[in-house]
Amino acid sequence: MPRAKQEPFRIGIAGLGIVGCGVVDLLQKNKDIIAARAGRDVEIVCVTAGNKNKARPVDISKYKWIEKLRDMASDENIDAVVELIGGAEGQAKTFIEAALKNKKYVVTANKALLAHHGFELAQLAEKNNVTIAYEAAVAGGVPIIKSLREGLAGNNIDSVYGILNGTCNYILTAMREHGRSFKEALQEAQKQGFAEADPTFDVEGIDAAHKLAILGALAFGVKPDFDALQIEGISHITLKDIKYADELGYRIKLIGMATHYGDYIVQSMAPCFVPKSSAIAHVDGVFNAVMTRGDFVDKSMMQGRGAGAGPTASSVVSDIIDLARGNVTPTFGVTSDKLLDADWQGVESLVCQCYIHLQVKDIPGVIADIAACLKDKNISIDSFIQKGHEKDGSVSVAIITHKDSFAKIKNAMLSVQELSSVLDKPTIMRVEDI
Amino acid sequence: MPRAKQEPFRIGIAGLGIVGCGVVDLLQKNKDIIAARAGRDVEIVCVTAGNKNKARPVDISKYKWIEKLRDMASDENIDAVVELIGGAEGQAKTFIEAALKNKKYVVTANKALLAHHGFELAQLAEKNNVTIAYEAAVAGGVPIIKSLREGLAGNNIDSVYGILNGTCNYILTAMREHGRSFKEALQEAQKQGFAEADPTFDVEGIDAAHKLAILGALAFGVKPDFDALQIEGISHITLKDIKYADELGYRIKLIGMATHYGDYIVQSMAPCFVPKSSAIAHVDGVFNAVMTRGDFVDKSMMQGRGAGAGPTASSVVSDIIDLARGNVTPTFGVTSDKLLDADWQGVESLVCQCYIHLQVKDIPGVIADIAACLKDKNISIDSFIQKGHEKDGSVSVAIITHKDSFAKIKNAMLSVQELSSVLDKPTIMRVEDI
Repeated sequence: MPRAKQEPFRIGIAGLGIVGCGVVDLLQKNKDIIAARAGRDVEIVCVTAGNKNKARPVDISKYKWIEKLRDMASDENIDAVVELIGGAEGQAKTFIEAALKNKKYVVTANKALLAHHGFELAQLAEKNNVTIAYEAAVAGGVPIIKSLREGLAGNNIDSVYGILNGTCNYILTAMREHGRSFKEALQEAQKQGFAEADPTFDVEGIDAAHKLAILGALAFGVKPDFDALQIEGISHITLKDIKYADELGYRIKLIGMATHYGDYIVQSMAPCFVPKSSAIAHVDGVFNAVMTRGDFVDKSMMQGRGAGAGPTASSVVSDIIDLARGNVTPTFGVTSDKLLDADWQGVESLVCQCYIHLQVKDIPGVIADIAACLKDKNISIDSFIQKGHEKDGSVSVAIITHKDSFAKIKNAMLSVQELSSVLDKPTIMRVEDI
Repeated sequence: MPRAKQEPFRIGIAGLGIVGCGVVDLLQKNKDIIAARAGRDVEIVCVTAGNKNKARPVDISKYKWIEKLRDMASDENIDAVVELIGGAEGQAKTFIEAALKNKKYVVTANKALLAHHGFELAQLAEKNNVTIAYEAAVAGGVPIIKSLREGLAGNNIDSVYGILNGTCNYILTAMREHGRSFKEALQEAQKQGFAEADPTFDVEGIDAAHKLAILGALAFGVKPDFDALQIEGISHITLKDIKYADELGYRIKLIGMATHYGDYIVQSMAPCFVPKSSAIAHVDGVFNAVMTRGDFVDKSMMQGRGAGAGPTASSVVSDIIDLARGNVTPTFGVTSDKLLDADWQGVESLVCQCYIHLQVKDIPGVIADIAACLKDKNISIDSFIQKGHEKDGSVSVAIITHKDSFAKIKNAMLSVQELSSVLDKPTIMRVEDI
């Protein structure tokens, strides 16, 4: 091939946690296959991490240990740095900036950093004639970044939907399959190693939202903007919601959605009802999936493991192979001067069906009152389920509305909530007919 | 970016049927987005097809019309040819060979040609410092070639499974969902434009097998070998088989399977039982899907439209964008000197559960005879269904065996077939626990 190079491609790895060790393991075990596919050897030159002497599942004794990140960023013996430290600010950011300024390619799994500072970093990379590769930042087991950036590059993409957090998907699956409460399912996930001790980042949708911000930028050719995202987690989902979903023909999934409506873009991370007939409804457990729709290719979907040492290392190494072969693509698929400022609109601008759950007092006329209130607000009902009394004497009501303005439906719920017979704040979830 | 070039990337398109016109349409409609992603303009310089004056859905008047394929192959004004003529032999092959010799990149959707002559063509491409790109040859709506060749490049892939023919999948779906016979479903597919007037290539599994030969070569780094494939189509599948599958917890899909067992590789294209719980069981209608398993990434699956002008054009153009950007990968992911000669083994070497269907006479002792025959051959039964008499007085029996040597099960069926009470040749399908 024209650009095959005889010299090895030399890298430094910063961060030797589960993923960092996974990358070392993969580069060692599949050395020959990687050399064949990269057109030359890939060589780990140096490594760094917080603690040199920690016990690790891989042998790193052959590699130069570097104490200070800044020394790796400026190491003249390497072509690329692999950043597996994480975090949107602090040392990972400083390290990547320094590496780019020193004309090193950057391979990273750092979704938070790219979601918050992707545009500035892409500019810095271009200024220095290098790029940032980050297949591992979104859905480790699925080459979705490559698919959006290259595989579907001929298309105007109008929407991206995804199940982007394995922890949440595991919890929602466990709730449905084993009748666990959110809390029980979370504890189970923690026991299995699928959730952190402090699960906030995962269960509140923030980790998934970082990934969505990146996918949206790639899909639509806009500057990533994490702050433009509306985020809702899954900690308020009850077993009752899960059961109603099933009864009504749906599954509840934490869905990342970015849709381009011509003039504006809506991005949302929120638990949604998806019809059981859709492929994404059947992506369960720790698996991730991303569905895209393009003007020529129509819908396509990729699914695979979302995290873990193996899948994440697989993505990191595919980036390394690309760079070693000389296949370089701009950070967000187009040069940063072509990335547009999006006109972001809130989810309230959407038109959709909604699921509503109300807990009401068991007194005569309560259903009539709710129905009247909805009629008054001109909200039309598609399905209505009222279940017999609960132990506390209250009654549970589930409604699927017809398609209508999400703002209007949410607004109507404010009035419903004021009825004296309504006990709690209503639960509202969008139906995403993916 | 380092290799952005100011000159447009210039192409010639050979073949202006549905796909050829789709490519022209896409390159015209999404010109700006393509230029941004390719880092330079992509320009159609010349076109050719069998008939210049045929009415076409796109305007080709601006492009130079070339009468003879060999003149396009040697045209000094183009960097790449796009071959959309088709066929394993004849003019498509001669044209591609000439283009490669003239150091043109080749973009093609021609699976038959690559399945039969891929290795020699890859060698010829390398000798001339160019490559062959063929994302459109397999599952148009899914960037599976790119995923195998680049996205999963760090992995030792041990198996690839796929639903690779939309026509067959449409027919099998219609049989299941609407109770159609094979013949009725085929006619329906023809009416909808999903099957050719002569459907042999599709329904006998040959088209899908071409694609599988390519996927196997890419996945395992071996020379593609169409002749090493065992191929069975779907024309013998009955509605009875479909119904038994459903009753037993399976779906029938035409499954392409290539599995690397360390020392040898088995490739098969055959209708199989897949458990309803597997994701691939829910890929219906004209959709295609490919499931891969790698040592680090584990299982991942991609699904999307298999054919049609839009999806195929999307794949062709993604290849063009890669080449225009300067991102060049060897035809089969590694240089051809690294492609191994595989040790191919037949499907008989597999160990699997099997579905067996028997039509037998309704006479006393017939079931006992069959059971005794299977016991005699040491075949153990997992499920057994016997349905009441049919109109002709015969009885239908469906069996799922335990896991065993496929050769042994097939062999046992030869003995069963010889029983005087067995009316037809038994139907045997592998259960693929994907």
